[in-house]
Amino acid sequence: MSTTTPADWQARPAPHTAEDWIARAAAVAAVLATDAAARERAGATPYGEVALLKDSGLVTLLGPVEHGGGGQNWITAYRVVREIAKADGSLGQLLGYHYLWNWAARLVGTREQWEHVEAEAARNRWFFGGAVNPRDRDVVVTEDGDDLVFTGRKSFSTGSRVSDVTVLEGVLEGTDRHVFAIVPSDSAGLTFHDDWDNIGQRLTESGSVTIDGVRTPWSSAAGYVDREFRPRVYNTLNVPTIQLVFVSFYLGIAAGALETAAAYTRTRTRPWPHGGHDRAVDEPYVVDTYGDLTAKLWAVEALADAVAAEGQELHDDPDAVTEQARGDFEVRVAAAKARATEVALEIASRVFEVTGARSTATAEGLDRFWRDIRTHTLHDPVAYKRREVGRWVLEGELPEPTWYS
Amino acid sequence: MSTTTPADWQARPAPHTAEDWIARAAAVAAVLATDAAARERAGATPYGEVALLKDSGLVTLLGPVEHGGGGQNWITAYRVVREIAKADGSLGQLLGYHYLWNWAARLVGTREQWEHVEAEAARNRWFFGGAVNPRDRDVVVTEDGDDLVFTGRKSFSTGSRVSDVTVLEGVLEGTDRHVFAIVPSDSAGLTFHDDWDNIGQRLTESGSVTIDGVRTPWSSAAGYVDREFRPRVYNTLNVPTIQLVFVSFYLGIAAGALETAAAYTRTRTRPWPHGGHDRAVDEPYVVDTYGDLTAKLWAVEALADAVAAEGQELHDDPDAVTEQARGDFEVRVAAAKARATEVALEIASRVFEVTGARSTATAEGLDRFWRDIRTHTLHDPVAYKRREVGRWVLEGELPEPTWYS
Amino acid sequence: MSTTTPADWQARPAPHTAEDWIARAAAVAAVLATDAAARERAGATPYGEVALLKDSGLVTLLGPVEHGGGGQNWITAYRVVREIAKADGSLGQLLGYHYLWNWAARLVGTREQWEHVEAEAARNRWFFGGAVNPRDRDVVVTEDGDDLVFTGRKSFSTGSRVSDVTVLEGVLEGTDRHVFAIVPSDSAGLTFHDDWDNIGQRLTESGSVTIDGVRTPWSSAAGYVDREFRPRVYNTLNVPTIQLVFVSFYLGIAAGALETAAAYTRTRTRPWPHGGHDRAVDEPYVVDTYGDLTAKLWAVEALADAVAAEGQELHDDPDAVTEQARGDFEVRVAAAKARATEVALEIASRVFEVTGARSTATAEGLDRFWRDIRTHTLHDPVAYKRREVGRWVLEGELPEPTWYS
Amino acid sequence: MSTTTPADWQARPAPHTAEDWIARAAAVAAVLATDAAARERAGATPYGEVALLKDSGLVTLLGPVEHGGGGQNWITAYRVVREIAKADGSLGQLLGYHYLWNWAARLVGTREQWEHVEAEAARNRWFFGGAVNPRDRDVVVTEDGDDLVFTGRKSFSTGSRVSDVTVLEGVLEGTDRHVFAIVPSDSAGLTFHDDWDNIGQRLTESGSVTIDGVRTPWSSAAGYVDREFRPRVYNTLNVPTIQLVFVSFYLGIAAGALETAAAYTRTRTRPWPHGGHDRAVDEPYVVDTYGDLTAKLWAVEALADAVAAEGQELHDDPDAVTEQARGDFEVRVAAAKARATEVALEIASRVFEVTGARSTATAEGLDRFWRDIRTHTLHDPVAYKRREVGRWVLEGELPEPTWYS
Repeated sequence: MSTTTPADWQARPAPHTAEDWIARAAAVAAVLATDAAARERAGATPYGEVALLKDSGLVTLLGPVEHGGGGQNWITAYRVVREIAKADGSLGQLLGYHYLWNWAARLVGTREQWEHVEAEAARNRWFFGGAVNPRDRDVVVTEDGDDLVFTGRKSFSTGSRVSDVTVLEGVLEGTDRHVFAIVPSDSAGLTFHDDWDNIGQRLTESGSVTIDGVRTPWSSAAGYVDREFRPRVYNTLNVPTIQLVFVSFYLGIAAGALETAAAYTRTRTRPWPHGGHDRAVDEPYVVDTYGDLTAKLWAVEALADAVAAEGQELHDDPDAVTEQARGDFEVRVAAAKARATEVALEIASRVFEVTGARSTATAEGLDRFWRDIRTHTLHDPVAYKRREVGRWVLEGELPEPTWYS
Repeated sequence: MSTTTPADWQARPAPHTAEDWIARAAAVAAVLATDAAARERAGATPYGEVALLKDSGLVTLLGPVEHGGGGQNWITAYRVVREIAKADGSLGQLLGYHYLWNWAARLVGTREQWEHVEAEAARNRWFFGGAVNPRDRDVVVTEDGDDLVFTGRKSFSTGSRVSDVTVLEGVLEGTDRHVFAIVPSDSAGLTFHDDWDNIGQRLTESGSVTIDGVRTPWSSAAGYVDREFRPRVYNTLNVPTIQLVFVSFYLGIAAGALETAAAYTRTRTRPWPHGGHDRAVDEPYVVDTYGDLTAKLWAVEALADAVAAEGQELHDDPDAVTEQARGDFEVRVAAAKARATEVALEIASRVFEVTGARSTATAEGLDRFWRDIRTHTLHDPVAYKRREVGRWVLEGELPEPTWYS
Repeated sequence: MSTTTPADWQARPAPHTAEDWIARAAAVAAVLATDAAARERAGATPYGEVALLKDSGLVTLLGPVEHGGGGQNWITAYRVVREIAKADGSLGQLLGYHYLWNWAARLVGTREQWEHVEAEAARNRWFFGGAVNPRDRDVVVTEDGDDLVFTGRKSFSTGSRVSDVTVLEGVLEGTDRHVFAIVPSDSAGLTFHDDWDNIGQRLTESGSVTIDGVRTPWSSAAGYVDREFRPRVYNTLNVPTIQLVFVSFYLGIAAGALETAAAYTRTRTRPWPHGGHDRAVDEPYVVDTYGDLTAKLWAVEALADAVAAEGQELHDDPDAVTEQARGDFEVRVAAAKARATEVALEIASRVFEVTGARSTATAEGLDRFWRDIRTHTLHDPVAYKRREVGRWVLEGELPEPTWYS
Repeated sequence: MSTTTPADWQARPAPHTAEDWIARAAAVAAVLATDAAARERAGATPYGEVALLKDSGLVTLLGPVEHGGGGQNWITAYRVVREIAKADGSLGQLLGYHYLWNWAARLVGTREQWEHVEAEAARNRWFFGGAVNPRDRDVVVTEDGDDLVFTGRKSFSTGSRVSDVTVLEGVLEGTDRHVFAIVPSDSAGLTFHDDWDNIGQRLTESGSVTIDGVRTPWSSAAGYVDREFRPRVYNTLNVPTIQLVFVSFYLGIAAGALETAAAYTRTRTRPWPHGGHDRAVDEPYVVDTYGDLTAKLWAVEALADAVAAEGQELHDDPDAVTEQARGDFEVRVAAAKARATEVALEIASRVFEVTGARSTATAEGLDRFWRDIRTHTLHDPVAYKRREVGRWVLEGELPEPTWYS
């Protein structure tokens, strides 16, 4: 990665509007793109890249202005994630997860809690990781006086190795109640293992974590008041909010694949010797393929934007969120995810047809887009997203809020 | 069609906002839907249905408020067309073409001309037809003193038989210059033939017309000042504007197919005897299909909405429209059309799989959605729309303004 | 239909080999094609067309040579059905169903029964219809001395109105046992209603039938010996055998759509004025589409041929048919049907894109291919065919023999 | 790879029939499969694996029986390649190319030449590589008395590093004439570079080669008699013959992906916690996906088999091959390739949806199927294959014989 310093970013005009922030993200993406393929191949832990997200201010995008944050909303956050993912799918995921974990204080916590977290996070430019994989009940939380003690293991803890703070999740011993708390990532007792070795999103540092007696005060248990959880519908927005993060980096990766391919086709793809055209860009099948893939991408981008705006209305007035409104939003997100998955996979696989045989050289790294999308789109089965939409259409059924719907 | 009277519509609260107008369109659609399948089968000329569009005020949606129009913009117009097309694809097309032909005064004419046309049209609730098929040079315009005389034949003149006024198009004798003028549809010399017999959009009255010496003053020649045409980029917005009308009724027809099918599946489709489910709506393949088709439709709807908003910025400031802005808009419209075509066809064909064998009874009319979409999506080859997008992506090429791009 | 006489066909060399018979079918198809679109539109009962199938000898294709039959096997029968369906989907279905009902004697009956039926059928050139719709238990069979008496109603009795004999199916009163018997179609008590009015396969005469005390001797109850049914695995081959008939006419209709479209493109489709080509057949998107659709069709044709050959091995040695062999065959047929359905629908819908807007004229009848395929492919849900294949792959599960699997 | 010795294979009954040989290939594939993923990841040169192809006799499959060959035809060869590719796509390609290069003597050479080559090859169990990339004119052949001297460079020389003999191709200096000759792979002057580093087919050793004055007698120039080339239509069968090799290993790789995935789904995929099923294999979307993908694969396999049989008729009587027969065959191969490409890519990408998130672990190697297919299907643009089919359908045009059609 070409090196940038905090001073480089401070020298630029500070972003104020959404457009400014998206432009800032594009500038960061341009830096990331310079060696994205090589970094991916090397599998290097993205310390420098996370520093770049901090230096450029992107990590505080959603933070309160009075504490140095960008004061932007989720509409912009999704667009920023998309921009970053165009250059580097892993960084797009890391940044998007960071936004959600930072925001989790607001989704789950009391006003006092989230105001504190957001102020601290913005002031210190915290980068958030998370040890949250609710499919497995593998972390036990015990009480010890005024403290909670987390012990166990999580298979996946995206970003934690490069984070300042980590969101822990566990089940209170002897109960069914989940507890979330934010702890410093360098807490004694937290051991991040370097065992994420999957075919895609390779730089997300999604390895396992061992949690050995990590202690945090009861007061930091998000959303608990007097050791009782305060449930509200807004809590359950965590799923559609993060799933739209997924959609954002899928679309970013797909756009990155298309742009990378187009640059290759323009400059390096040779026209077919028996096709009667002097330039690859004049071959009808090449033009048709770019037209088709672009049209498909644009449609899903537009859906993602529309759904983001629908969701923002809910975030703008959390206490007004009804089960109906939450369910309708979740269903729209489900549709966006179904389309993003299908279209992103198609783009990432078909671009090779318009770059040609030599573009399969490992050094090009053109396959990383497919590997990245293929890997994360399996997070939860997309068939269940289509099911949510189908049941809503046929019976007006709202998806039951779970960790995945 | 269940009969409604002008008084019925006057009794309702007058629409003011875009939402009001879309709701008004939905109310009209509900009336149209009561016998849409039967009317389509009968092939009856839609005199009553056009009257309904007038009575309900929809024909004046875009007209100036001071002359009784709705004062809405194209964003709303496209949504209204979509609503109408859900119930009746032909009426959706008729209304959409009407909007464009009414608007053509503004696209092509001088300020004096279009202010006059829009005032007259709104005051008299004119319904517009058109004898405009620029692919064939088949109408000759001759000068006779201060008059222009149109003579010839057009293969297709959508809506003219049910219209109050008709837009004529011809080539000025001995020149390459096209002339447009609005004439009363009952002008002597205009003969509309009842020869539109195609598999879809059967009620659009798109038959041929003979034009035998139809006379109109030179001053009515749109955009001509002192017998010279005043070209500007905004003129060329006719194509993306009408192509987005196409997109709107394709999406409306597709939504209509999906809604009609869903109502059938809910109430009449029998569960498969060997499937282990008591209700068709519980069959996994049924749920999956509705989920998949709905997600696809939503994505294109979102794209259409986004592109409509982009276009509205151009309509809002006609003199500022540059070739670049016009070209970018045309390319976005092209993408929307490519997607709408593909998705609408898929929906209209696949819905049968979730309604079942008995839904193929002619009396159900469930095939009309496919026939309607299949017919109009051939207006111009969709492959050339993908080409516009592809060339723009690869080379930044702007589509040359023609009658189709 | 251009008229042919029995003498015309007798004047030709008699077919002997499979190739001869397929050529004979092609010759018959050429006659049917002359007015297929017009007959379909008129909805005329195909008396003359069934006579043609008899005159040309096609109805006796499978019959014993010694009684005047063609002595061919199912491999050839499927190819013949495909040829006929290219020109006329309804006639393809009628002929294919005829083959199955004629063959039903062999599938279900005793050797004495089927030898008798096949001899009579070949000698008299019987055309078979059927009142067999096992999804509804709507015909009751009562015993009266040595006779069986059928009473009830069937919703669909394909071909019966134009048939010489009809296969009746009912449930023996007070039992679960189905009985099949062949009766003259002009039996007193049989009333064929002219109520088949669906969007496709319009000439199959698949209307309902009332059965009012139709009497037949117990000895004609197929497969019963001493009033007890003799079950064997070979009986259950009725389903894959007829489903492969379905596949055959789907593929024939699809091939017909492609050939009809290609003839249109070659001679009547105009090149796009802005495409830079002088002939439609030189437009890259046209060439690509024909290439793509043809490749898809060929693949399914090859699968159908391969599966037909696999099935023929079972027909060649009925007593050796095991449940495993039957199940494996059924699964292969299911796969062929899934592919034929999807590909035939795609072809029938997409051909319009390469014939163009004017090809939607009702008089062309180019939509009948889609309507025909769309109608019959709903006979039973294709999703259950994919399920059969999937369960076989995953668990080696053999489909339970039902009336649909 | 689990080690097998020549003696292990000699201990088994010698294969005689096509079925025997396919079973032998399956046995070899089982050995290859034991560590295919690991070997692919390691990128180890397949010395042992090529030895296995020799030990098992597969390399001599097409060779004359009297010299120890298997005496089989291309129908069987394609099936054998498919079997091997199920386990290891690279080995499937190596074996298939070997068959073609060995056969090239017969396609191009005189009877004397090919009888000699085939005898030597079978007797010595030669494994063939090739330095043949006709798209680049990069090797010059000069005459030196009775010798020819090859000098230059080829970008790709599949298999050469692990081969006994290599087919060289070059252009005779000062002419347009290509010359092929077989030389020992350890010839002085031949340097194989270890520079094949592409995302798929990683073990094919398709690196570049430097040819520095490699000498071979004029008499070994294939098809030359008295230094003049003897052209015939059969020569041009090299393209459809090798393209059907491509189809074979694409289909083998796709089948391998499906089988590997099914084994994973059966044993390791967890049912979705919110889906209501106890086993992944009972999830409807899982069953549907396997059914759909299997049906698609079977259709293309059937087409490949049918086309192989059509081609064998040409190989059986080389001197009877007409331009029409050659062209028809080439077009059928083109269709098979178009379908194989599309279906194999779809299978290799979609299988992950039915294995789940954990199956993306690098150690599983489940992505290698997609990488393998994606890489080789770009050998020449599949769009041109569809074009060949389309032009043949529309105009009966036969593809001009080139190195790719």
